[in-house]
Amino acid sequence: MVGGGEGAFIGPVHRMAAELDGAIELVCGVFSSDPARSLSSGQDIYGLDAARCYPDLQTMLTAEKSLPEHQRMEFVSIVTPNHLHVSTALAVVQAGFCVVCDKPLSHELQAALDLERALRSSDLLFALTHNYTGYPMIREARQLIASGTLGRLRRIDCEYLQGWLSTAAENTANPQARWRTDPARAGAAGCFGDIGSHCQNLIEYVSGQRIHSVCADLTAFVAQRQLDDDGNVLLRFDDGARGVISASQIAVGEENALTLRVYGEKGGLSWSQQEPNSLQLRWPDRPLEVRRAGGAGISAEAASAGRLPAGHVEGYLEAFANLYRSFAAAMRRRRQGNRVNTAEIDWPDITAGVRGMRFITAVVASSQAGGTWCEM
Amino acid sequence: MVGGGEGAFIGPVHRMAAELDGAIELVCGVFSSDPARSLSSGQDIYGLDAARCYPDLQTMLTAEKSLPEHQRMEFVSIVTPNHLHVSTALAVVQAGFCVVCDKPLSHELQAALDLERALRSSDLLFALTHNYTGYPMIREARQLIASGTLGRLRRIDCEYLQGWLSTAAENTANPQARWRTDPARAGAAGCFGDIGSHCQNLIEYVSGQRIHSVCADLTAFVAQRQLDDDGNVLLRFDDGARGVISASQIAVGEENALTLRVYGEKGGLSWSQQEPNSLQLRWPDRPLEVRRAGGAGISAEAASAGRLPAGHVEGYLEAFANLYRSFAAAMRRRRQGNRVNTAEIDWPDITAGVRGMRFITAVVASSQAGGTWCEM
Amino acid sequence: MVGGGEGAFIGPVHRMAAELDGAIELVCGVFSSDPARSLSSGQDIYGLDAARCYPDLQTMLTAEKSLPEHQRMEFVSIVTPNHLHVSTALAVVQAGFCVVCDKPLSHELQAALDLERALRSSDLLFALTHNYTGYPMIREARQLIASGTLGRLRRIDCEYLQGWLSTAAENTANPQARWRTDPARAGAAGCFGDIGSHCQNLIEYVSGQRIHSVCADLTAFVAQRQLDDDGNVLLRFDDGARGVISASQIAVGEENALTLRVYGEKGGLSWSQQEPNSLQLRWPDRPLEVRRAGGAGISAEAASAGRLPAGHVEGYLEAFANLYRSFAAAMRRRRQGNRVNTAEIDWPDITAGVRGMRFITAVVASSQAGGTWCEM
Amino acid sequence: MVGGGEGAFIGPVHRMAAELDGAIELVCGVFSSDPARSLSSGQDIYGLDAARCYPDLQTMLTAEKSLPEHQRMEFVSIVTPNHLHVSTALAVVQAGFCVVCDKPLSHELQAALDLERALRSSDLLFALTHNYTGYPMIREARQLIASGTLGRLRRIDCEYLQGWLSTAAENTANPQARWRTDPARAGAAGCFGDIGSHCQNLIEYVSGQRIHSVCADLTAFVAQRQLDDDGNVLLRFDDGARGVISASQIAVGEENALTLRVYGEKGGLSWSQQEPNSLQLRWPDRPLEVRRAGGAGISAEAASAGRLPAGHVEGYLEAFANLYRSFAAAMRRRRQGNRVNTAEIDWPDITAGVRGMRFITAVVASSQAGGTWCEM
Repeated sequence: MVGGGEGAFIGPVHRMAAELDGAIELVCGVFSSDPARSLSSGQDIYGLDAARCYPDLQTMLTAEKSLPEHQRMEFVSIVTPNHLHVSTALAVVQAGFCVVCDKPLSHELQAALDLERALRSSDLLFALTHNYTGYPMIREARQLIASGTLGRLRRIDCEYLQGWLSTAAENTANPQARWRTDPARAGAAGCFGDIGSHCQNLIEYVSGQRIHSVCADLTAFVAQRQLDDDGNVLLRFDDGARGVISASQIAVGEENALTLRVYGEKGGLSWSQQEPNSLQLRWPDRPLEVRRAGGAGISAEAASAGRLPAGHVEGYLEAFANLYRSFAAAMRRRRQGNRVNTAEIDWPDITAGVRGMRFITAVVASSQAGGTWCEM
Repeated sequence: MVGGGEGAFIGPVHRMAAELDGAIELVCGVFSSDPARSLSSGQDIYGLDAARCYPDLQTMLTAEKSLPEHQRMEFVSIVTPNHLHVSTALAVVQAGFCVVCDKPLSHELQAALDLERALRSSDLLFALTHNYTGYPMIREARQLIASGTLGRLRRIDCEYLQGWLSTAAENTANPQARWRTDPARAGAAGCFGDIGSHCQNLIEYVSGQRIHSVCADLTAFVAQRQLDDDGNVLLRFDDGARGVISASQIAVGEENALTLRVYGEKGGLSWSQQEPNSLQLRWPDRPLEVRRAGGAGISAEAASAGRLPAGHVEGYLEAFANLYRSFAAAMRRRRQGNRVNTAEIDWPDITAGVRGMRFITAVVASSQAGGTWCEM
Repeated sequence: MVGGGEGAFIGPVHRMAAELDGAIELVCGVFSSDPARSLSSGQDIYGLDAARCYPDLQTMLTAEKSLPEHQRMEFVSIVTPNHLHVSTALAVVQAGFCVVCDKPLSHELQAALDLERALRSSDLLFALTHNYTGYPMIREARQLIASGTLGRLRRIDCEYLQGWLSTAAENTANPQARWRTDPARAGAAGCFGDIGSHCQNLIEYVSGQRIHSVCADLTAFVAQRQLDDDGNVLLRFDDGARGVISASQIAVGEENALTLRVYGEKGGLSWSQQEPNSLQLRWPDRPLEVRRAGGAGISAEAASAGRLPAGHVEGYLEAFANLYRSFAAAMRRRRQGNRVNTAEIDWPDITAGVRGMRFITAVVASSQAGGTWCEM
Repeated sequence: MVGGGEGAFIGPVHRMAAELDGAIELVCGVFSSDPARSLSSGQDIYGLDAARCYPDLQTMLTAEKSLPEHQRMEFVSIVTPNHLHVSTALAVVQAGFCVVCDKPLSHELQAALDLERALRSSDLLFALTHNYTGYPMIREARQLIASGTLGRLRRIDCEYLQGWLSTAAENTANPQARWRTDPARAGAAGCFGDIGSHCQNLIEYVSGQRIHSVCADLTAFVAQRQLDDDGNVLLRFDDGARGVISASQIAVGEENALTLRVYGEKGGLSWSQQEPNSLQLRWPDRPLEVRRAGGAGISAEAASAGRLPAGHVEGYLEAFANLYRSFAAAMRRRRQGNRVNTAEIDWPDITAGVRGMRFITAVVASSQAGGTWCEM
């Protein structure tokens, strides 16, 4: 792991998610750019031997490559702030290791394209942890749309509302708030880099539709804040559907209110991340249907994304773990000398990562131009 | 009543709402432009004497004016398709009667302004039945914002999703679908005239904020349909708040999903028309609070908009009836020779009606220009 | 109307419910045992002419009988405290008028049987306003069970939780609390007379099953209270199903939380009065289904119990009005000389009223014996 | 681990829960009474070395005791069918290892008392995985009641409804259904041993109240089934509160519908396991309050039971893991030579286990006597 030291939110999440199914074990890392802190975090938070709490990335890559294969780390999870994602990933790829990277892919589009090129010329696996794609009911939604059950899509909306930045938390000791509102580390977008990009990813993952163009109106409501903390984006899709992405971190009192709704010619669906085990389906001619994780009538794809019988809530960590579970399975096939086909990749990969950066770039451009239409 | 004959939806609603509190009684009407149908509808649907089921508006106005005061109708409810609202209202006003008119005010802005002028030079009362303003919890929301409890507002969203026009219902015998998709009767907007205008009205009624400019993307998804059946509108408010209005009549399976959300610096609220007796309040530093119609801790304004103890659901008709109840009370004061002050008017009046027409006009203009910003 | 004077809750409810559909009009009444108060209530609350606000029941019956038929009242609604229901009803029946009576039927079983006998020997119509039977989704539930869709029933639960008597409200000016906790006026049961009886009625109405025996544990939690304010009752049904009725008026903070759940061999249903427009259906082999008032896929019986399209909430008053609407239609057929068949009676009648009194009697006997099984 | 071989449900749950926080690692086990199956399950399901997949309990205990301390297992999780819990636990205790045991404690009371005695005369730690006690909002509820915020308790209800045994699943290949309906392995109660006991435990854990006596009506609805699959129990508590436990495995279509409601003199609470991150609080004089896992206004005790910010759903595994997390922390203190005080034990221990067996025993006795009151 790279990143995830003291004060981090997402590092421990990656650890728990990766290890949940018993197929992955955290064995080493660089947990901070400060070597002493890397050491203490690796020992205290992750219970690792001091010897594998490395002071910097190159030391780790060199040291691990020299270990016998059965001891050596197999891939690297990157959980740093955005601006370090690509440079870290490039080094890891160059050293011949696969990569799991937190989202968004980068702080700017060009770096993302560089990484895409490097990966295309390797046979290494890459996963971007747009973790919401891991929910069983999101898999069910994707399956329903892919099978044509909803008919041609017309309207696709996604919103992600939080309230934790409704005051100037970046002026407090909150390290999350500090780097996520800092253009140097977060990139050109704040709220839209952090969570708006989840909306774009979720929409494209579930619907199979590509956003064609956007018209964005981003705002920084908190005084002195440099990056957007709220915004709304009109969407036009390649195939004629329309929709809206709304994202906010000043929606006071909201926790992690991510919802997705899709309406086609034959049916509609809605899903809410805060009650992730239900998927509402609406039909023109019959009653509302609520499919449930683990429940009757769901697809094999959704069923395989769960671990428990229906009614035993699986949440954020379990969905996150599904990405790692698939990644681990692919790593295993690869280790056994098999080629991993695109069709086997059910997690967001480098293509999704680049799409995300194009979205962030287009949204910022649109908003800076006063709210005009920009192609993605 | 003018309109509301056989096949109408909103006419019987007005009758039930008006009469609910025992202060109003439907006594006469022109229920159709076809005199025979006016007569049969008045007798069969409304149980009126044949003598007061008039063949046309002028006959009714003349006949009623000639009746002794205690028998004479006191005001006219206009429940026709949109294009007849203003011409009817102008005639009624000219005859000296007060008016209750269904929304939107008109099929085009100029007519609305004509009526505004006529009303300003009279002392007649006028109400536009944006009925959703009548819900107790909407009154509570309005009160909370007016009192500053939510702080300066930042984000205001309203959406209204229906699915009943997801197929070409206008090609069936459905009279509602026919006139609402017909530019000659509905006006320049379809979905946004019918229900998008409710969103704009509800936002301005509850928030006390005025929409400054809009950027709209309207679509007619159903083949051959002439008016929008879906759309999204970015909003900028006079005081700096931002938001979105989404409205759709092709959101298949949705019934009457009108929701309002407002986030200020100090708190947020959300309300859903399909569960109208609850109002969710979100705070930065304390748990979610759910105020309930008739329940503990609500304002006098909200309490007075209910008729039953908490937990005895009041719905659409009761909210609608609140407009009539206030109107009836004002009529009574007027009859007793008192002047009705603006402060006493808690229903949408001609000002709100004109605002609605400006909104529809701006939205259509913005969308026709490809989705550019237009001031209201 | 008899009862319903100043301070009453249910009198105005009956007025609104009766008049909602335009087929009934309140024309006269005895609104209080105090003639002056009867007069003032009739004028102020109900807007009646002084001449028809009678000082006592016999005066009303005599006066109304002497009126020409088209002016004369057609039936009497009894909305007094429980102990006056039967004596009033007997007098009204004797005078040849039909009766609508609030629930429970009486304060004690013998009186209920007397009234049953009197009604059996007349051809007068009688309705007991167990108003919750009027909800469209309750009609849907009844239809589903009657048609065998749920299979043989196994488990039937109903609970009704309120919190308004969690303190000694009877020692305040609250007239509702005073008479409902007074054995002389309420009868042998408090909470179970007032709302537990709704549970029993709703269960038998919806399920078509009869409760065979009960084992009850009633409690008066508030000091000095003479009647139960909380209780739980185990149920055994004639056909082998089991279940529980819970009712409480000290469930602090609960409003009017009436829920019904029925599980058969093939499917289950649940319904909650505070969100009455939805009916949840559960199946062994397919997803949860939510039928909606006015929505797709509901029975004709449920559809006819609504007045508005799906998503336009109908609540307590509309459900209540459905009883009056059916009653008015039967009155009309009767007036036209037709016999009203039992099959046409979709409202709780005298049989249901006697069942309710047997339930109250058995529950009180069971609880007083320390919680033993008693047959109904 | 003892038990948890192929086809088991709860074994893998224990593995995931135990390991979630990185403080526990599954190192060995006897996964089946069939040695070959123990070996294959240990390797395939849990990825263990063959050497530590033992053929039987004694072999494991002997072998592990002979290992150096840093390699040796530290405690044993027992996840067998009920009838093997106590005999296994006694052997483990005798060998000097601490124990985590699945619920209920035993198939009969006497064995439970034997184990209690053995544990009392040791200093070994024991945990019974009544996992629902691990939810953050259950901890919040417990804290609220312990602090007196709800006042003296009056009414306590818990129900647990499932539908998975609504047909004769024991006649299929379902191993869960087979042993849970078999008196030899499950004990004297079926549904009430499996899930009714969760209700009793949750009630006593949260409320701090002890059930004094019960009146039970248990039923086996499915033909030929030997143990109850449904039942209802009236409750009387030591301190005067009353309530009901309902449990069913034939509530067709229900998943894992465990709900708890408690009403005191000053406030009430409700919680549902299927939406475990919310706790509803009801007050006599202010609006409904919804406390949220990780959210504002919750107690330190509840906050410490979560791992993620509010709105990131934690579910069944995370709650389960909280028991293991506490247990691991206590094991650590013990290893460091500290005594673990009762006050530090926030998980259900042997006392709770014996209470559970008393409850099952009393419920079965009551029901067999036709539904009479039995003291616990």
